[in-house]
Amino acid sequence: MSSFYKRATSVFTNHPVLTRLLVVATVSGGGVAVYSGARPYYGAYADQGNCVNKKKVVVLGTGWGGVSFLKNLKNPSYELEVVSPRNYFAFTPLLPSVTVGTVEARSVVEPIRSIAAKSVSDFNFREAECFKIDHENKKVYCRSTQHSKLGEKEEFAVDYDYLVVSVGGLSNTFNTPGVEENTLFLKEVEDALRIRRSVIDCFERASLPSVSDQEREKILHFVVVGGGPTGVEFAAELHDFVHEDLAKLYPALQQYVKITLLEATDHILGMFDKRITEFAEDKFHRDGINLKTGSMVTKISDKEISTKVRATGETQSIPYGMIVWSTGIGTRPFVKDFMKQIGQADRRVLATDEWLRVEGTQNIYALGDCASIVQRKVMDDIGAIFKKADKKNKGSLKVDDFKEVVNDIIDRYPQVELYLKKKQLKNFVQLLKNSQPDEELDIEKFKAALSEVDSEMKNLPATAQVADQEGKYLATCFNRMEQCEKNPEGPNRIRELGRHKFKPFRYKHLGQFAPLGGEQTAAQLTLPWDTVSIGRSTQWLWYSIYASKQVSWRTRTLVVSDWGRRFIFGRDSSRI
Amino acid sequence: MSSFYKRATSVFTNHPVLTRLLVVATVSGGGVAVYSGARPYYGAYADQGNCVNKKKVVVLGTGWGGVSFLKNLKNPSYELEVVSPRNYFAFTPLLPSVTVGTVEARSVVEPIRSIAAKSVSDFNFREAECFKIDHENKKVYCRSTQHSKLGEKEEFAVDYDYLVVSVGGLSNTFNTPGVEENTLFLKEVEDALRIRRSVIDCFERASLPSVSDQEREKILHFVVVGGGPTGVEFAAELHDFVHEDLAKLYPALQQYVKITLLEATDHILGMFDKRITEFAEDKFHRDGINLKTGSMVTKISDKEISTKVRATGETQSIPYGMIVWSTGIGTRPFVKDFMKQIGQADRRVLATDEWLRVEGTQNIYALGDCASIVQRKVMDDIGAIFKKADKKNKGSLKVDDFKEVVNDIIDRYPQVELYLKKKQLKNFVQLLKNSQPDEELDIEKFKAALSEVDSEMKNLPATAQVADQEGKYLATCFNRMEQCEKNPEGPNRIRELGRHKFKPFRYKHLGQFAPLGGEQTAAQLTLPWDTVSIGRSTQWLWYSIYASKQVSWRTRTLVVSDWGRRFIFGRDSSRI
Repeated sequence: MSSFYKRATSVFTNHPVLTRLLVVATVSGGGVAVYSGARPYYGAYADQGNCVNKKKVVVLGTGWGGVSFLKNLKNPSYELEVVSPRNYFAFTPLLPSVTVGTVEARSVVEPIRSIAAKSVSDFNFREAECFKIDHENKKVYCRSTQHSKLGEKEEFAVDYDYLVVSVGGLSNTFNTPGVEENTLFLKEVEDALRIRRSVIDCFERASLPSVSDQEREKILHFVVVGGGPTGVEFAAELHDFVHEDLAKLYPALQQYVKITLLEATDHILGMFDKRITEFAEDKFHRDGINLKTGSMVTKISDKEISTKVRATGETQSIPYGMIVWSTGIGTRPFVKDFMKQIGQADRRVLATDEWLRVEGTQNIYALGDCASIVQRKVMDDIGAIFKKADKKNKGSLKVDDFKEVVNDIIDRYPQVELYLKKKQLKNFVQLLKNSQPDEELDIEKFKAALSEVDSEMKNLPATAQVADQEGKYLATCFNRMEQCEKNPEGPNRIRELGRHKFKPFRYKHLGQFAPLGGEQTAAQLTLPWDTVSIGRSTQWLWYSIYASKQVSWRTRTLVVSDWGRRFIFGRDSSRI
Repeated sequence: MSSFYKRATSVFTNHPVLTRLLVVATVSGGGVAVYSGARPYYGAYADQGNCVNKKKVVVLGTGWGGVSFLKNLKNPSYELEVVSPRNYFAFTPLLPSVTVGTVEARSVVEPIRSIAAKSVSDFNFREAECFKIDHENKKVYCRSTQHSKLGEKEEFAVDYDYLVVSVGGLSNTFNTPGVEENTLFLKEVEDALRIRRSVIDCFERASLPSVSDQEREKILHFVVVGGGPTGVEFAAELHDFVHEDLAKLYPALQQYVKITLLEATDHILGMFDKRITEFAEDKFHRDGINLKTGSMVTKISDKEISTKVRATGETQSIPYGMIVWSTGIGTRPFVKDFMKQIGQADRRVLATDEWLRVEGTQNIYALGDCASIVQRKVMDDIGAIFKKADKKNKGSLKVDDFKEVVNDIIDRYPQVELYLKKKQLKNFVQLLKNSQPDEELDIEKFKAALSEVDSEMKNLPATAQVADQEGKYLATCFNRMEQCEKNPEGPNRIRELGRHKFKPFRYKHLGQFAPLGGEQTAAQLTLPWDTVSIGRSTQWLWYSIYASKQVSWRTRTLVVSDWGRRFIFGRDSSRI
């Protein structure tokens, strides 16, 4: 379907006359579903006041989730409006590279209007931030974010038929005193640029003749808080920058430079395989990066960072020159407010069902870092499942009697598949047979067979990969909205009659990289078999995957040429 | 000499042992002048507290003048210290291109330490700005300029044996009210980046649904004040950006965009040939750029710019979205202070003699936009010149008797050569003969012959080309300081005995470009014959000359690839 659509679209785009002909044919013939992305058509209709009666989809945010949705939304029967304080999409996995100039900021961003121009026909973008969602009146309230002297902030309301919330998160300070005032975050492009200037500031400051050696040591003490992939990659990039580039230009300062990585848990890269964690810790040790695990930050003043060793309770205050804070994700204030309105005040992020619909609302979807899917437990529905299989109300069923509901169960409860995989079972029937050798199962036996299944339920990580897949999934649903309303394609409802309109979202983990500097990268991949790969060849795999994942040919070309430029000329240390 | 030195240096750099051998030979043998740029040698000496007794040269500024001096200083008997708020050199002629992303900021800058590493052995850089020159105690006072939270500003003093002032200028507001607060300048890299963000801000602001059409028109009114090469090039770049790139992404806003260029005199590009001015005015007219010559800016409020038509006195106030102010150069406050100290309070910039020495000081040199050479008039020295030629005190001389002093006069007074060229005279003797057909000339007849020569005296323009040549000239003088002290190579002194140590600085004008947008450039070139060239081929000449003039292979590669990137993908409009 998708490839047919692509070919069809390009035919229409290249021959606007064809579009018009087809429209005439459709209107007169009736009933034929027409897909077309050709601009002249929609443009004309849009100017005449939406006489096609399009549904308006408002997307908040231009991060991974929002942009993935945008790129994949091909159904021209929507009017799309995107609201975001950033008029571009940023390829965030390369931000640690941007902090030291391995890659330039401009190479990892693409204007949202260019991205939209390739897929959506009826599109508006507003550079503003949402400060309130009024779900009862289907409105979002926004405030302009232009920094220039163009007068007061503009406030305006945007109506929606469907709302897609993909605003991501903020850096989480865990209410540690002094973090907001004294540290640098690493979430946005601006943050990365700020870090880059700041590193050079430290080196230039330390080069002044009036600075004492003790002060010099303080200024050149770089602290990274958070041993997750971002913190680790930043520490590695900084180390490379200092030793590959700055060492040549500031030879006298090398002896004073120190990089410290603080992590509250016992190991860095905790979400990775143990082999990767060990390799990373060893490498940092060899590189002279001062790794302090099990060390919590308790306070940050303008001169010192205070830490507490978890195991011993021992506290310590160390002078620093610069701190990068990268410990996790917090929720944006307007999302918190919205959560209170809809009775989710006790949750960390927006709760959605498996179709990404925000619980307790109508026509509001949420995805990416600002949302989390609340998976239903099999145990909560176990009675209904049994009933569904037990059509004739016998109270006791043969294993084969479950055959009809198996696919529905597998579709509806992803934990079942994960459990089967973990236990190396071929299928659901085998699970029942293994657990209950009896011929017939009553509800209690059925419960017992599935009792451990829910242990495989997992929250999805807050990564680009998840947001990207969610955006794509949601766009596909929107693309097929009318079709699936007529012919639902989801699993049969367990507790009610009929089918679900769509299949629920299913995350497919492809793997994760952890670049460790010095042309070494660690990766945990699902090929589909799980594998761990470490070293220089993984770095090249990383290069090729990151290049291929770029949002446009422009950014792809720029990123690759930036890598080449770095190999030949090194990283630039001009303070701009 | 220079090429020998280069070869010798590379031999020593590649074979440090050789250097050491040569040093030993020199010390034991004595008297042999050794040139070497090999790091190990000087490094070792510098660490042992300058036992070579090097003279310390302090350079203020990392613009064209300072960097040209730095690049050409090859004599290892100096210790060099550079003080500047910018730790990089910027190729300023490309700044108008940076404002709209035709070229990236990072592509036109090069760290000063990398540049220095290629020429100077004993080098220090301090990222700070000078705020006071104490010429009596040979000290400059500096203040750190790092923006980060590294504590209070550091203040420190730097001693010098020689001081080179090449700090450039500020944008000149001519005390017009509201300029500082409401306009953007275009002198520094930061200015260019600010303009780029500001243009996008205007387009995003104008895209908001709550903005009225009238307001939209105001926001998208871009005003450029100053019809010099920078203002004109910026207006042209902005026009290209709007029509080639933004038109695609903001199609609905095209009808509101207006670019106005204000110039106080009657024509833009006044310093160029009339043909170029006319071509540029025609082109802007065709492009729809609103050109208002003879129009002075009287006041700028936060919403409107007020102008007065020079001829009629008519005043007008127009709403604007963004103003770029590019009208000329003002003097930095600390330079003003210094000028007061040395009795130059009534001058606009530092006055130097023809050897770039600041008048009224010892061992202080000034070059580039912050300085101006005060040429001596022939008429002021006419008696001394005659006396110099009249060795036997005859009171009346044959034309041939001047032969001996002719070269000295030509060297000392550049206006003589310009006058000969203008009058199409072969040489000085012919000038005398033409003017005075008599066999013998007394002082009065001699005066009469040269009476119009001083009319050819000109102040050098405030351009990169002048600063670059001055820096190179000064470095050559420093390179040959010892030699020329023993064997002066300058012209004979007119009013005293002996020779000048060096030849005076002589500016060689190579031509000037005025890019006009749409792949059209105008140029006035000296090949050595004067010529005017306009159009697409001149644009390609511009590309090749600007590429070749880059300070490093890194910037050269980046600038050229930026141009290519623009051809293929256009300019990026992400607001970062």
